[in-house]
Amino acid sequence: MAKPKNALYAQSGGVTAVINASACGVIETARKHKDKIGKVYAGRDGIVGALLEDLIDTGKESAASIRALRHTPSGAFGSARYKLKGLEESKAQYERLVQIFKAHSIGYFFYNGGGDSQDTAWKVSQISEKMGYPVICVGVPKTVDNDLPITDCCPGFGSVAKYVATSIREAGLDVASMAKTSTKVFILEVMGRHAGWITAACGLAAEQDGDAPHILLLPEIKFDQEKFIAKVDATVKKYGHCVVAVSEGLQTSDGKFLSESGLRDAFGHAQLGGVAPVIANLVKDKLKLKYHWAVADYLQRAARHIASKTDVEQAYACGKAAVEFALKGHNAVMPTIVRASDKPYKWKIGMTKLEDVANKEKMLPRDYITADGFGITAKCRRYLAPLIGGEDYPPFKGGLPQYARLKKIAVPKKLNIEFKV
Amino acid sequence: MAKPKNALYAQSGGVTAVINASACGVIETARKHKDKIGKVYAGRDGIVGALLEDLIDTGKESAASIRALRHTPSGAFGSARYKLKGLEESKAQYERLVQIFKAHSIGYFFYNGGGDSQDTAWKVSQISEKMGYPVICVGVPKTVDNDLPITDCCPGFGSVAKYVATSIREAGLDVASMAKTSTKVFILEVMGRHAGWITAACGLAAEQDGDAPHILLLPEIKFDQEKFIAKVDATVKKYGHCVVAVSEGLQTSDGKFLSESGLRDAFGHAQLGGVAPVIANLVKDKLKLKYHWAVADYLQRAARHIASKTDVEQAYACGKAAVEFALKGHNAVMPTIVRASDKPYKWKIGMTKLEDVANKEKMLPRDYITADGFGITAKCRRYLAPLIGGEDYPPFKGGLPQYARLKKIAVPKKLNIEFKV
Repeated sequence: MAKPKNALYAQSGGVTAVINASACGVIETARKHKDKIGKVYAGRDGIVGALLEDLIDTGKESAASIRALRHTPSGAFGSARYKLKGLEESKAQYERLVQIFKAHSIGYFFYNGGGDSQDTAWKVSQISEKMGYPVICVGVPKTVDNDLPITDCCPGFGSVAKYVATSIREAGLDVASMAKTSTKVFILEVMGRHAGWITAACGLAAEQDGDAPHILLLPEIKFDQEKFIAKVDATVKKYGHCVVAVSEGLQTSDGKFLSESGLRDAFGHAQLGGVAPVIANLVKDKLKLKYHWAVADYLQRAARHIASKTDVEQAYACGKAAVEFALKGHNAVMPTIVRASDKPYKWKIGMTKLEDVANKEKMLPRDYITADGFGITAKCRRYLAPLIGGEDYPPFKGGLPQYARLKKIAVPKKLNIEFKV
Repeated sequence: MAKPKNALYAQSGGVTAVINASACGVIETARKHKDKIGKVYAGRDGIVGALLEDLIDTGKESAASIRALRHTPSGAFGSARYKLKGLEESKAQYERLVQIFKAHSIGYFFYNGGGDSQDTAWKVSQISEKMGYPVICVGVPKTVDNDLPITDCCPGFGSVAKYVATSIREAGLDVASMAKTSTKVFILEVMGRHAGWITAACGLAAEQDGDAPHILLLPEIKFDQEKFIAKVDATVKKYGHCVVAVSEGLQTSDGKFLSESGLRDAFGHAQLGGVAPVIANLVKDKLKLKYHWAVADYLQRAARHIASKTDVEQAYACGKAAVEFALKGHNAVMPTIVRASDKPYKWKIGMTKLEDVANKEKMLPRDYITADGFGITAKCRRYLAPLIGGEDYPPFKGGLPQYARLKKIAVPKKLNIEFKV
């Protein structure tokens, strides 16, 4: 009987609090089928490691270490921002990948990433076929932006949603208690370059009239300075303070990012990133109100300590399902989250073709946004609420969360042919 | 037998994740001694409410609501940035307070705040004596800055310390996993205008060689641009990335705040706050490295979801002890935290005179800082480690922490004389 083929797992793009839970699902499931899947290799720094023949042998990691991936944020094997383009444009990279697969007898490719990565996985499945070394390619969904089509939600989003909603609720109480003599307006900047899902999730914190946040600035709604200032003014007059959540991707009516339109440093250079200080300055100039601002940046997508239990379970389930699909011979597919009901929240794993998810972005539907553009509707709440459900705390030692430390032992090179990335 | 005197409790200055735990300690303890303490009033928005005769009757809050204060961040009764100056300068305010005390037969004053507030409490005890209406004044320590003298630590600090150390560990893993093709330098700005305790606490996240954070920029050490850039460069060359924690109070050699020296907005106005983007621009200009930055701002001091169990217990114990001191007739004193041992960590409540804590700041000792000024020593770790010990999660509902909602019913006015604050 022939030796079973090996598998390659790679993480791609911006990491999340739960992408390692997907890795855990892939590896633990593969280990249960040693008759069909030999070794599971991981690309060091994602696809870049695959191209450089720098593979990690996950078989050298203990069961406890792999188990610990379930509660460890970031990309444990390293991730990469490295987009493979069209089959012709990036011909050399695609062919190199197939050579690597051949050299290490890799028959399964699990690519854990967003839309771009699903496109890559899809193309790899095509070219491997064409080159006479067919590899089963299965995508594993991942993105904090929640912008993948078809799947009801994306692993990674629920946890950042829980973090931003919790954080703005807490900061909102802080501002409310100081507003009489101190800060009147607080602005929290969150991620979401194109889609407003994370900003919308901040809205979950408000349960009663007057609760923070009072204003959401979504990338789907062009920024109207006068309307915004009037809303801040009215909110401060009514509640004594105003809490704003703003998306890093907020744009002016002429399509420019606010984060790139405002600040200049002492040398006159544009200050990239930081729409919160731009909004804060606006509030200061127009309303002369005391303000504070925060930029969560990586804190929000790395915050495993306040991860959503639902998100962790879905991330793990997607990794597990990817391996099960591959074992059933499904190729060029990706597991999806299918919502069966909102209340009680019920979900199951579905399957879609990679070509259908590749390079598409799912924006916040207009009917998820209130008429004035500054809030979320009941329909949006119904969709978002279950995704932040449940807590799944990591183990703590000495007051700090304990995260996996892998050995990341390299697989001996077999091809040993230089390649530039 | 005479009706027992009432008590006034007021929160002062910047709030914390655990100041309400002290309020809980004060109110629950007073409720156990109704024979000696009548009603417990709270100043709405701190001392400002007291001056305006806007008092909250905490007796109207259920036992469950008061209990919930223990896990609720911010200042539940409202706090104020309102400093009473010298007895002559602020004569009108001090006399007004005593009139309010008289009108509402308040015999105990519990003032929950930092150095300034302890100074105020001390002066109130003196003037009330002088005006023939002696009030027992007891301070309750509170500050995220950990800069009060005599007490080993300050309620509020341990929780912000746990939050920043956890956050920079998580963000550090994120950066490490992306560094090969993306962000090389990450900068987290934390609080601490004068004292570097919070920035130092970030250092607890690093347990092994190469762990984030790699550089701490403390307010106690004047910023040396060349030394800093060289250190970042060396760190990126050695580990592939560099994580920096910077204090909002970082100063240049000529004593200027970096946060006020760098950025200009589009109109050329100084951008107050935000030393992280200033440092980030510096890294970009000098080293041409991809950077990201975060400013935690209020998120850090409001983050009750990741509070230190030790901190919560000490905050409660200080509130409880303040009432017990008052009942024993101690006047113009404040409970302190006394450290009995580091390992295992043992602490008890002590007592100090208000005049000894008033208006003094405790900075980070030089021997808590490494020779190069960019890190913390073993001695500093030994001091800090126990303060973040233990988790004390708030109750969650629907994926979000549930915090106390008080009725805050006003006490009927008795003095009814206008007063301007």
